[in-house]
Amino acid sequence: MDLELVTIGTELLLGFTVDTNSAFLGQALAAAGARITRRTSVPDDAEAVGTALREALARSRFVITTGGLGPTRDDLTKHAVAGLFGLPLDFHQDIWDDLAARWSRMGRKIGERNRGQAEVPRGALVLSNRWGTAPGLWISGEPGEVILLPGVPTEMRGLVTHEVVPRLAARGGTRVIRSLTVRTTGIPESTLADRVSDIEEALAPLTLAYLPGLEGVDLRLTAWDSDPRAADVALQAAADRLAKRLGDHAYGGEDADLAAVLLDVCKARELTISVAESCTGGLVGARITAVPGSSAVFAGGMICYDDALKRELGVPGRILEEQGAVSEGTVRAMALAARARYGTSLAAAVSGIAGPDGGSEAKPVGMVWFAFADRQGVDSERYIFPGSRGDIRARAAQHVLLGLLRRAREPSALSPQPSVADG
Amino acid sequence: MDLELVTIGTELLLGFTVDTNSAFLGQALAAAGARITRRTSVPDDAEAVGTALREALARSRFVITTGGLGPTRDDLTKHAVAGLFGLPLDFHQDIWDDLAARWSRMGRKIGERNRGQAEVPRGALVLSNRWGTAPGLWISGEPGEVILLPGVPTEMRGLVTHEVVPRLAARGGTRVIRSLTVRTTGIPESTLADRVSDIEEALAPLTLAYLPGLEGVDLRLTAWDSDPRAADVALQAAADRLAKRLGDHAYGGEDADLAAVLLDVCKARELTISVAESCTGGLVGARITAVPGSSAVFAGGMICYDDALKRELGVPGRILEEQGAVSEGTVRAMALAARARYGTSLAAAVSGIAGPDGGSEAKPVGMVWFAFADRQGVDSERYIFPGSRGDIRARAAQHVLLGLLRRAREPSALSPQPSVADG
Repeated sequence: MDLELVTIGTELLLGFTVDTNSAFLGQALAAAGARITRRTSVPDDAEAVGTALREALARSRFVITTGGLGPTRDDLTKHAVAGLFGLPLDFHQDIWDDLAARWSRMGRKIGERNRGQAEVPRGALVLSNRWGTAPGLWISGEPGEVILLPGVPTEMRGLVTHEVVPRLAARGGTRVIRSLTVRTTGIPESTLADRVSDIEEALAPLTLAYLPGLEGVDLRLTAWDSDPRAADVALQAAADRLAKRLGDHAYGGEDADLAAVLLDVCKARELTISVAESCTGGLVGARITAVPGSSAVFAGGMICYDDALKRELGVPGRILEEQGAVSEGTVRAMALAARARYGTSLAAAVSGIAGPDGGSEAKPVGMVWFAFADRQGVDSERYIFPGSRGDIRARAAQHVLLGLLRRAREPSALSPQPSVADG
Repeated sequence: MDLELVTIGTELLLGFTVDTNSAFLGQALAAAGARITRRTSVPDDAEAVGTALREALARSRFVITTGGLGPTRDDLTKHAVAGLFGLPLDFHQDIWDDLAARWSRMGRKIGERNRGQAEVPRGALVLSNRWGTAPGLWISGEPGEVILLPGVPTEMRGLVTHEVVPRLAARGGTRVIRSLTVRTTGIPESTLADRVSDIEEALAPLTLAYLPGLEGVDLRLTAWDSDPRAADVALQAAADRLAKRLGDHAYGGEDADLAAVLLDVCKARELTISVAESCTGGLVGARITAVPGSSAVFAGGMICYDDALKRELGVPGRILEEQGAVSEGTVRAMALAARARYGTSLAAAVSGIAGPDGGSEAKPVGMVWFAFADRQGVDSERYIFPGSRGDIRARAAQHVLLGLLRRAREPSALSPQPSVADG
């Protein structure tokens, strides 16, 4: 079933309200087998609402609206739809009694100006709103079907979940939309596309979307199928093919967090972690400790933002003077010192030029050095990341997590924890 | 100036992506005197994109699109617009060279797959994208003007702010919407409303919105006026009244960041800062170092997540055993030890139960201890914050910044920096 969405509210267009309703509706309707083919947002204006509805009904038999149903908006949407369908408004005593009782429970007396909320276009199905005052309405006739929902998120969600989705599903939604995500990191979008192009070409009827972000590129597979089980099997097979091809760049599905994946691997292998952060200034620790239960693996570490603190941690003054704070020598010394001082299986160090100032030809903004110490010793990597200060720091933190994950998976990681003398 | 917005992406309709771009565009364009009269979202489908653009251009001379400009095969906006305007695509060697240079700076070689990104509809204005790879495009002719922007939020925002808004503003608008925000922290929404109720009653025709978030409650004043200067004067007067009433709970306007305010005060007074973080795990350091130039004030500190690291920092084992890791004694010792070890004017310590597990009757989830050390000694505070693990950590980090700001403003903060013996 295809349908269009019309969201009504001047504040949506002015940008004062982020349209989270649309995201909720997209997911809830897809799960019920209905696909939103277009979404239109218009201001609280009778003519704009009427035009958008008329156009939507000319393209699609089915339209859902949100907003413009409360007492403060003059029931704009209801009048527009009643007008389009040529229906008179009837006063419903039972709705009025419900409204009066609700007001009474709040210790107030309902006023005549709320009378319009008890009016319903003739023949419309009234969707009881237990989460607020304005009921939803389901109007069928010519030129189609329109479901009117309030714009208040809790009310809209309650009505969709309990009144709309069950009725849509009962019509035997013919096709369902299912999707599966493969999260990737440490590989640019176009390299990724080259690497999986043969898989992508053989995917049809599944579709693949590339969703780049600061943590990497998410690959979202989507299936449209009359059989949800067949869709899930096809999606899982495709996701497995992609993940296998991408190796450790693919770290999980939909809601996977690289920090949580790292912690799971470390827990299973009884490894502990510490960090020494310069340019990320605590961001790596914040990412790791955002995960509940991280204390079983993460000891902590040092934010050695100032060079004096790098020295205090154990970076030789000679290295700082000769190579600078953003250098291979410095991060290697940081990682070794953190591992020794905090007695962890693994330690990561990061130092870079996050910008916007402080770059040079030899050390441009975005250049970040990483080091990872384990029982075998220490190794180091250098990357140049694009974007703003925030982007560079977020990408650097993500890369620390990827580097730690790679080391945690190595056979050599499985070893007794070091004593201070190992450093 | 009226315009329409067309946002392109199957993800938007499926609800996998919340459309924050639209909110940003609404605000940025309103500030430039341009009003969005309608917003249409369509999937990544050539026909749907073409139809939506044709319809939008039939209603409005001016259309902005987001999405569908990247290197992967789900991108198609440029071809749809070129088709509508009847323009051939020209390969631009300079764009290609820029792209190749950008790849090269990141140590990679650009591939043929990216060639399409250097193609431009004939005669279009190229909007240089310093935040990513796909340039924006501004196409004028019959049937109107279309501005094509990438869908990646950081790139879209950069292009709107630096390339689109200045050009639109130069064309002049009639009635403008202006708004001004007073950011507050450390005071609950209802207390805030009580405290400013008399000011709020006298505000009309300005409106006041309360916008609660994890960093505090933002107060947004809005004015609609044909005279931008008159609107700005009225807004500023109202904002000043609110800020004066709220004292140090009001810390700045629109984009104010409490960390940046703290750093400015410290720079002016030549104060330095270190931290010792337990439950926030690096979040305070991350907040501070997100601000460019923070290295002049922020030395760094320790993430002592594990008790062993609290001991290593200098918390006596006796205190940890008798009072526990989340206790007044522990945070006081952490703050004093950090100040002494890192030699800063001020030091903050934080330890709490972020949840979801680990709470008890005496120490419930959300309970957080804070300590702030300066030349005079150390003092401590306890709060119980509501919300999820993430909420509690964000509120705790914000409270550390507020506590440091209060101490930085005290006359006693102006003092020589301590030697290690002070601790």
